[in-house]
Parts: sequence; structure tokens; C-alpha cells
Amino acid sequence: MDFFRVQTTQQVKEIIKSTKPLDEEDVALEDAAGRILAEECIVQDAFPPFDRSAMDGYAVQAQDTFGASESNPTPLEVLGEVRMGERPSSSIQPGGAIKIATGGMLPEGADAVVMVEHTQVMDEHTIQVLRGVAPGENVIHRGEDLKEGEKILEKGHLLRPQDLGALAALGKVRVRVYRRPQVGIISSGDEIVPLEAIPKDGEIRDTNRYTLWALIKEAGGIPFHLGIASDDLEDLQGRIAEGLSQGDVVLISGGSSIGTRDFTVEVIESLPGAQILLHGVAVSPGKPTILAKTGEKMIWGLPGHPVSAMVIFMILVAPALWRMGGRKNWETPRPWALKAQTSRNIPSAQGREDYVRVKLREQDGMLIATPIFGKSGSISTMVKGDGLLRIAMESEGVQEGEEVEVWPF
Amino acid sequence: MDFFRVQTTQQVKEIIKSTKPLDEEDVALEDAAGRILAEECIVQDAFPPFDRSAMDGYAVQAQDTFGASESNPTPLEVLGEVRMGERPSSSIQPGGAIKIATGGMLPEGADAVVMVEHTQVMDEHTIQVLRGVAPGENVIHRGEDLKEGEKILEKGHLLRPQDLGALAALGKVRVRVYRRPQVGIISSGDEIVPLEAIPKDGEIRDTNRYTLWALIKEAGGIPFHLGIASDDLEDLQGRIAEGLSQGDVVLISGGSSIGTRDFTVEVIESLPGAQILLHGVAVSPGKPTILAKTGEKMIWGLPGHPVSAMVIFMILVAPALWRMGGRKNWETPRPWALKAQTSRNIPSAQGREDYVRVKLREQDGMLIATPIFGKSGSISTMVKGDGLLRIAMESEGVQEGEEVEVWPF
Repeated sequence: MDFFRVQTTQQVKEIIKSTKPLDEEDVALEDAAGRILAEECIVQDAFPPFDRSAMDGYAVQAQDTFGASESNPTPLEVLGEVRMGERPSSSIQPGGAIKIATGGMLPEGADAVVMVEHTQVMDEHTIQVLRGVAPGENVIHRGEDLKEGEKILEKGHLLRPQDLGALAALGKVRVRVYRRPQVGIISSGDEIVPLEAIPKDGEIRDTNRYTLWALIKEAGGIPFHLGIASDDLEDLQGRIAEGLSQGDVVLISGGSSIGTRDFTVEVIESLPGAQILLHGVAVSPGKPTILAKTGEKMIWGLPGHPVSAMVIFMILVAPALWRMGGRKNWETPRPWALKAQTSRNIPSAQGREDYVRVKLREQDGMLIATPIFGKSGSISTMVKGDGLLRIAMESEGVQEGEEVEVWPF
Repeated sequence: MDFFRVQTTQQVKEIIKSTKPLDEEDVALEDAAGRILAEECIVQDAFPPFDRSAMDGYAVQAQDTFGASESNPTPLEVLGEVRMGERPSSSIQPGGAIKIATGGMLPEGADAVVMVEHTQVMDEHTIQVLRGVAPGENVIHRGEDLKEGEKILEKGHLLRPQDLGALAALGKVRVRVYRRPQVGIISSGDEIVPLEAIPKDGEIRDTNRYTLWALIKEAGGIPFHLGIASDDLEDLQGRIAEGLSQGDVVLISGGSSIGTRDFTVEVIESLPGAQILLHGVAVSPGKPTILAKTGEKMIWGLPGHPVSAMVIFMILVAPALWRMGGRKNWETPRPWALKAQTSRNIPSAQGREDYVRVKLREQDGMLIATPIFGKSGSISTMVKGDGLLRIAMESEGVQEGEEVEVWPF
């Protein structure tokens, strides 16, 4: 069967790439942080909309101040004051100055601002300029920040606080963004009991429900619960179908290792239009991963081991959610990895990507990554760790002192 | 006046450090991601609570398999199967094997698991073992992941997805966390108009409201709006008082540069018990920053320039919110900065910390930081940038190719 062929993460990313972004919606600017832009933002009106002072001081004609110094100050006549939020009532004449605060509108005729620190008040109508200014000095010109017609934000951009600021400056009340993927979580296995239960012999509390919930939110998705599925075909089938009708993605954790994976595969194949695209990925931990699609909806079978499930989420499911959510840079968890040196040799099998949990520390200005060894089911390795060190597929491991990439978590 | 002395960020952090964490509350585990632990988490019951199989295969007595190989397989009698979520009904006898799936409870008498891939089924009652196992192989022992009595999470720890997983494994239904700081936002200045308004000459839309809102959330706080204050003593006074009665922190943006800062200071001083602790910080951009406290509540006067306000938020206000929120590592925006090389010389004045907006790119495995020059009021420098490059106070700048720290945003 073709789907038993283990695929590389690069191949899985090709599958993910072929998924279309979800539909679009409008949100209020205030609610747009962390959302993905579904439109290009072009500057309609120049910002600032008028020449502004960048300092507290006096608006002047720069040429009047040329050569001014502490030992040779230039006297100027104070013609008035610019009121904040208003058009200046007077304009500058040669030899004149108008008091202005930071952000005030530059009066007509002025081309520079002398900082208040570089002036001395002589009397009500006269100041001395103690340092000359060049034309344009301490002035933010109309459109100097955001030029008319300039594209400031691209479609697919993840909106950060400063982006909201720029959009506010431009008067953008509502923003067009992609809808966030809704992701249902199923924990499967007869051994899984809810958090509140006292596990009997052989039983284990549901942990993936909580880690996946938080990870989905970090990846811009909206999680919802589909409960614990027993190892019963109809039960699992019903929960997956419910998830697909309510949401865009269903995550099933557990049930993808050999013992039960035929069962999970059977359930997925029984869904109308479902196609299994991946059954096994060349990643450790996390090999027994399943990905199926029905239309544009995704079903992921994640390993039951909490660490394997988390690693696969971070390196594959999160990119898939970002991709569905319309993000341009969807491939890696963050735009940049940390560079670190390994504190010891870490062996790795060729032909698979290894994700090693590491502890980080700073030493002589270098970041040192020390691997935390432990069985892949040990959640403590993730709790004690600061990030994931990636060992490429073609590598047989890293040497002590070698520079490596770490994705902090 | 003492408070006109410009202080260093290190001095401001001493002020922040003296602030007590807020009170504590209990939340459901599911809602605990991103919250700060207000208790130590000690493992009460070992996890896993019983010896489990780490693989799909057969539980065996390791010594029965010693020397087994493909050319010299060892036959074992299959005595039954472990049902998931149940105590095994039979125990292992020498020469016997019990089928077990990943996560199944190890039967009595067994001390290892042979992976299914290393066995061959002969008939209903017999398998051949094709590779020997050592005692303990493919078994996760009781408490091997989380040991009884072990401290797994410290007070002051920011809860990540994996931490929730560990707490779920331990049956922690509710978690004691610190209350999140509630932070009121005031934009001040006669020139500021709401987003929805069409600015008249001299007027500017309120941008800080949106950037600060998003930044407060990123720093674990709960933002609320206190509106736009005109340059009127009573108006500003009223809004600050309202903020202090509703929340823990009030941020006033604008009103802290020379033109209006006496005014803001006057308003703050008029509040009962208010004490101004900082008036000017040796940081560029962002020098005209005010910090006052009344009891344990904080009032920050941020520069009106959006970039200065954002930089000060990131390097000082965010740490203050984390500190109030009980976080142990509250001093830096993230635990680790990126290391990059500068693409060109960047001059800096000694005696102040400089935060330069940079664009990052990867080149030959190195991260290259290119400064984006622009007046500090230019929000476009933050929008085009990928992070802040810090130039230390004692430095006169960095040379092209020098290694620098960048805090991504």
C-alpha cells in the first residue's frame, strides 16, 4: 500500500502547501492583533497628513539661524504659539519664530524647528537661538512616515502591535483577515481517562487534550473538544464526523501506532471523500503520523506519546494551521531559530529528522544547548527543555561544539 | 528636583523589582496557558503510575531472549494479550510472552518488551523473537517520567503547552496562578482624535491605543481603555483616577515631552499618595518617560511618539507587567535574544542605550541585521523592521560585521 511509504517533512510540506487558505472576514482594528491580513494595505492618505514638529521648540526659517552659536546667538521675534490639534493662526516671517510642541503643525513659511534646549528666552517677544538648524531639521514632513500609494503590509502578513498602529494612523477601522482554522481534538484509546478521574490500573489521564489546546491557540487556531474516543470504530467515526462538520481540522492523538493504526486508517477511509496522504513521516520522535484530507478539511492522526504529538504539532500541524489561516510565512514555527553550540555529541540516524529537546544556557556570549535525554514518551523532557534542536535528515548527528539551530518553546 | 535626573534602565529595573506580585487566583487547567504559576508543583503520584510498554510488541522476560537473532530466533509461547486500560489478567512465566500495545500496562513477571517488528508469528500460540532485548528495554517504568516528590515547576513559571500536559498527567484540575495586571490606556493631547474621525489640520489619529492594547496582551496583562485626554488638568486627572480605581497600572501616552510634562507631572502629583520615581530614562528613543507609583499601583507616562512608546513598553513596561504578574524571569522580553551581524556601522551616543530597528536576513548561515533609519516618530520603521538591536550605554556604536543582540518583534 502506497501510503505506508514514510515521507519526509519536505514532502509533507508540499501537501500542506496545496491547501487553500480559509475564507475571509472583517474584524475591528482592535481585534486584529495576531490575525493574518487578507488584503494588501496601500497608503491612501499620506501620514503624517501635514508637516509636524518632531521636538518641543520654535518653528523658524532655517536660514535665519545659520551660524548661530552659544557665543554668537541669533535673536528671533516670537510671533505666537502653535496650538496642538489646530492649524497655526500665523505664518513665519523672516526673523520670526513661533513656539511649537512635539507633534504640532508647522506654520506656513517655517522649514525647521529649533529645540527649546537650544534657545534662551529674552523677553515675552524675543528668544536667542544658541545653535543653528538646517532646513528640514526636527521636522517630520507630510508623508515622510507613510507615503501615499506605498504598500505597507502584504496579504498574508501576521499583524503585530506596530502594524495596528500604522493601520490606525491611516484610519483603518476594519481590517480584512482570514478566518482562523477551527480545530477539533480527539484523544483516542481505551486507556485514556479524563483529568478528573482517578486512573485505575492500566489507565492514564488525558494529557494531549491540554497541550494541543494551547498549541492550537499559539498557531492562530480555535480549538474545540471532541472528547475521548474508545477503541471502537463507530465511536471514533462519530467524533471525527462531528469534528469535520463543526470545524476545519480534526486532530486524533493516539491510535496511530501499529497496534491501532489500521483501525484509525479504516475509520478515516470510511469517511466520504477522505483520502490518506501520509502514513508515517521520517521524523523522530513522531514517525507514526497520519494526514488525510476530505475536500479542504484535514484529519491528522498524531502519535499518542505526548512528546511525539507535540513535536509533530510544532513542525507540521502548526505550519498547516498557519497555511490554512492564510499566513505567508507558514513553514517554520518562528521566522528565525536561535544559533547555539551543543555541549556534547548527539548521535542521529541518517534518513530521518531528529528533534532533540535541549536546555539552553548563556556562556561567554554563546548559547549552549545541552540535550535532555529521555524516552520520547517522557513529558518531563519537554517541561525541563527550552527548545527543540533539529538534526537534518542527511546528518548522522552533531559533534560537541558544533553550531546548531534551536527552536525555543 | 531630584526626579529630573535621567536614570538608566538598570535603575528603573530596580524600581520595578521592588514591586510586589499581584494576588493569586485558581484557574481551570485548560485556561492556564500563558499564566504565571503561583505555587510550586511537586509530583504527588509517580507518573506513569505503572510500568508501561513504550512500543507495540510482546512483554517478555528479557533473559529468555538473550542471544536471539534472525538466524537463531527464540520461540516463546504467547500467553495472552494486555487490554488497553486494564490490569493484565495473566502474568509472564519463563518462556512466555504476552502481546502488548504502546502504553499498555506491563504484566507481572515481565521486564522488557520485544518490538513487534522483531518478532514473527508462528501460530496462534507461538512467536519467534528475532532480536534479544535487555532488561528494561522498551519499558517506561513507574515514575520514570515524573518522580514522586520531584519539583517539576517553580513558582513564577510561565505555563507553556507542555507544562499543562505534565500537570494533566498529575491530575491537576485547578492551578494557582497570579492575577493578571489590568492596564488602563490613556492617549493624551489636544491633537489626538479617534480612529473613526477625519483629522482636521493639526490633528492626528490615536495610534498608541491600538499598539499598547496589543502589547499589553502580549505581556500577560488585561488592557482597558480610558479614552483620549485633552490637555486639561481635570480631564487627565479624572481619567487617571478612574484607571487606578479599576486597574493596577495606568499608561498615559503623550504628555511627557517638555511642553506638557510639567502638566502631566502636576496631575500625577495631585493624586493621593502618588510618588514620581522616574522622570527621564537614558534610552533612545524614549527618553521622556515618567514612572510614578501610588501604593503598589503604577502610572507610566510614555512618550507620544509611537515608536518611542513601543520601545519603552517593550524594554520597561512589559518587564514591569511580568513582574507584577509574578513571573520569575521578568527582566527581558524573551529569554534569549538572536545573535546577528550588523551590515554596517551604527553610531550611538555614549551614556544612553540605543534601540535601533533592524531588518533581518539569513546569509551563509548567519543572521544579518540592517538598521532601518528614520525619525523616532516614524511608525514605518517598526512596521518594516523585524526586531530591535540594542546598543549598550557604554558603547559608542557598533562596527560593520560586529556581533549584536536582536530582540525580534
